[in-house]
Amino acid sequence: MNFTGAHILSINQFQREDVDRVFAVADKMEPYALRKRVTRVLEGAILGNMFFEASTRTRVSFGSAFNLLGGEVRETAGFENSALVKGESLQDTARVLSGFSDVICMRHPEAGSVADFAAASRVPVLNGGDGANEHPTQALLDLYTIRKEMSDKGRDIDGLSVAMIGDLRHGRTVHSLSKLLLLYNDIRVVLISPKELTLPDSIVESMRAAGVDVTVSHELTQSIADVDIAYSTRIQEERFSSKQEADLYRGKFRLNQAIYTQYCQPNTVIMHPLPRDSRKDANELDSDLDDNPNLAIFRQTDNGVLVRMALFALVLDVADKVDDFSHDVHWYNSRQSPSNS
Amino acid sequence: MNFTGAHILSINQFQREDVDRVFAVADKMEPYALRKRVTRVLEGAILGNMFFEASTRTRVSFGSAFNLLGGEVRETAGFENSALVKGESLQDTARVLSGFSDVICMRHPEAGSVADFAAASRVPVLNGGDGANEHPTQALLDLYTIRKEMSDKGRDIDGLSVAMIGDLRHGRTVHSLSKLLLLYNDIRVVLISPKELTLPDSIVESMRAAGVDVTVSHELTQSIADVDIAYSTRIQEERFSSKQEADLYRGKFRLNQAIYTQYCQPNTVIMHPLPRDSRKDANELDSDLDDNPNLAIFRQTDNGVLVRMALFALVLDVADKVDDFSHDVHWYNSRQSPSNS
Amino acid sequence: MNFTGAHILSINQFQREDVDRVFAVADKMEPYALRKRVTRVLEGAILGNMFFEASTRTRVSFGSAFNLLGGEVRETAGFENSALVKGESLQDTARVLSGFSDVICMRHPEAGSVADFAAASRVPVLNGGDGANEHPTQALLDLYTIRKEMSDKGRDIDGLSVAMIGDLRHGRTVHSLSKLLLLYNDIRVVLISPKELTLPDSIVESMRAAGVDVTVSHELTQSIADVDIAYSTRIQEERFSSKQEADLYRGKFRLNQAIYTQYCQPNTVIMHPLPRDSRKDANELDSDLDDNPNLAIFRQTDNGVLVRMALFALVLDVADKVDDFSHDVHWYNSRQSPSNS
Repeated sequence: MNFTGAHILSINQFQREDVDRVFAVADKMEPYALRKRVTRVLEGAILGNMFFEASTRTRVSFGSAFNLLGGEVRETAGFENSALVKGESLQDTARVLSGFSDVICMRHPEAGSVADFAAASRVPVLNGGDGANEHPTQALLDLYTIRKEMSDKGRDIDGLSVAMIGDLRHGRTVHSLSKLLLLYNDIRVVLISPKELTLPDSIVESMRAAGVDVTVSHELTQSIADVDIAYSTRIQEERFSSKQEADLYRGKFRLNQAIYTQYCQPNTVIMHPLPRDSRKDANELDSDLDDNPNLAIFRQTDNGVLVRMALFALVLDVADKVDDFSHDVHWYNSRQSPSNS
Repeated sequence: MNFTGAHILSINQFQREDVDRVFAVADKMEPYALRKRVTRVLEGAILGNMFFEASTRTRVSFGSAFNLLGGEVRETAGFENSALVKGESLQDTARVLSGFSDVICMRHPEAGSVADFAAASRVPVLNGGDGANEHPTQALLDLYTIRKEMSDKGRDIDGLSVAMIGDLRHGRTVHSLSKLLLLYNDIRVVLISPKELTLPDSIVESMRAAGVDVTVSHELTQSIADVDIAYSTRIQEERFSSKQEADLYRGKFRLNQAIYTQYCQPNTVIMHPLPRDSRKDANELDSDLDDNPNLAIFRQTDNGVLVRMALFALVLDVADKVDDFSHDVHWYNSRQSPSNS
Repeated sequence: MNFTGAHILSINQFQREDVDRVFAVADKMEPYALRKRVTRVLEGAILGNMFFEASTRTRVSFGSAFNLLGGEVRETAGFENSALVKGESLQDTARVLSGFSDVICMRHPEAGSVADFAAASRVPVLNGGDGANEHPTQALLDLYTIRKEMSDKGRDIDGLSVAMIGDLRHGRTVHSLSKLLLLYNDIRVVLISPKELTLPDSIVESMRAAGVDVTVSHELTQSIADVDIAYSTRIQEERFSSKQEADLYRGKFRLNQAIYTQYCQPNTVIMHPLPRDSRKDANELDSDLDDNPNLAIFRQTDNGVLVRMALFALVLDVADKVDDFSHDVHWYNSRQSPSNS
């Protein structure tokens, strides 16, 4: 894929070499994210951070990533805009808003809306999540985290064994990650969920067609015995017809330190797209895991900044110029490497 | 008018030479808006972008204009502030907020409120719209667009013939534009609206007193036969007592490509303050006009950034220094000239 | 206290020398706040301005202070974030959000929440107000204002005589200011409130234990006869069980120019944490005092920017580098010294 000027709308756009390119650029961003250096390569550029659905962490992650490249951020954080209410088409909104910035990140509650918006935009658009459809930067940061964690163990993504745990039916992130894994070889996936919340058949079939070894399970402990990655997810209460229905599934498949010690390999990496539900009746990842060095959940969100910096740099074609416009950091820096978070 | 340090509250402040000055500076802003150059002339300056009424596009347009001059933006996007609820006077609010920035742009739902605010502010205030009263930057960007479009045809604003179409009673932008046209010579205006939604008499009278040739019509096709500009507006549903009442007028005076081809001069410029209402029962400007090169509606919003940059530069007295603090653009630039949007 | 990397959560952290250090740095910030110079010392740094409770002025004050040091601001302005609703712990939120910035300012409606957040944050956290608990920067800016106003008269904080007037029971700012005054010598405090709204006994006792001369009064005019500072506060209607209950106390202890002339010393400084309630039935500080040069209420908010700049500079250890990264201001500057507001 030619990244320069491209819209980033779906993980279906990515071939393996494209993922490699994003990850290579993300690696180069680490000194800036860790505040070892400052770069001003995008000084004067403007990100239109258009969140037509509230999401503090994803919005701030995109905005910070752009700031770390030296650019400015103009943004909206909810459906304040009544132009759509006044009958404006999404195409008109795109033509107008794309006149105010150099690149747009957009989140919108309706599936497909970001692609429609991008078609009319005069600047590149990054999908920040369009309803139940796509959230490509989340899938990329998950895979980037997997690559880094495995690399620390001298391993690669090829040959990976991963357990996906929880609400696999509604979890947008496991759907997207599953699609990305199709690009790799010798992958083994264990799908652990209640019978009613299994991964959609179409995704399972495309994995098997691509040669992925897929096991379906409705039990946690034995199933995570020899995986490299245990990827836990939250019961997506907001996608159920009632809280009562969601309650039927909450609190199953809890992972805590005792289970980890008894059943997992010593270096199994624990991941979660966050937020994890820490209320007593849910608690899918117990806080007693917080001291476990294999808990990678906060390294995931830190990596999200790197991946988003990489996408901005690629789309605006500055990936090779970042160091040229850099200077020292003058302030106190408490930040540790994501590897030690 | 001496722009340095001035509040920009009403188009009544502007003489013809003032408008000329704004437009001359706006022309100089184009390389920066088109990202051919970056300027840092306002590096360190802060805009207080105080929108006490939601308006994504106007808010972002002002904010981007300030960023493009190198300044920072602090902002509010709605009535989150409970200080007014707690009984604070608008004068106190102005004294406090003006301590946080170098210039303020303010939108407020009450007519006259921005002028009251400005009277107590310690920094220049730009009116971003105060209820049904004024929205001076919209009128200026409309006239700037007219000047540019006519200039492309070797024409001037003097001698202009313009049709204003739709809800002329409630449309704040046509009121303001009408007042600005008083400054020019040999203007012909055709007012096309339902009988119940005519332009207020006072404005018609002031136009005629200034020598404007005003025709009133309640029919679209013949009336636009030989105008230079067809300025369409939306039925301002929110100003009617009920949706039902607004429905009586919606969908009248629709302009589409077939009507344009049959009735208009070949180069008639189509304008609209946006948002246009593209719902089936309204659709005052059909989307089949989107390929018509005379459709200037997105050039209007792009020009808004130039006009707002010019006003900031004039009020903060940096209009002649913009180029001195400029440098090259290092990133991919997909933006085309507003003339080709 | 070692400021570098510290959380600023409570005024209880401060010893007299710490307060002196903050004030000395705040003094150095004045040329930047007055736009006589621009500094870029924090160019590339990001403030996470996390306001989980709406407060335009405090939020913008913190954001502007950071911009004035050259840094960028990413922010949230209300409870848009549903992560907490989805069961995320405040600790998880802190770990995630602290990955996006170099320092965080947080406001939250629950007492103690900011300290909990800080305990899990990987970057320094400044308390922007946590419910009825603490608002340390407000107390510091109040005392900084007192020091400046007294200094103009050749006086010091030691030996100060201050009247606190109004809703002393609910006013968080008088509680905090009272605690800060414990650090100074020969302080006299006159507490003027309705009997039902007296300062909490625990605070009165700690003042007396520290040697403060405390007088309790339920009458305004005689009690302010020879104080240096008259610190007025608003009836905190939102803390009463009903508007009716608050109405019982509103409009008592009104200070206006006539009372000031008749009862106060000629140079008594008038302060108020703002917003003042200017509605007829409240009006604790009449607007006829606005021309009185001893009215310091807008100097207070201006000083807030200086104090917040100082705290950022200290926590990020750039207090001694601010001038090294400074340059001239190129734009029109209408701002006057806070002393002349």
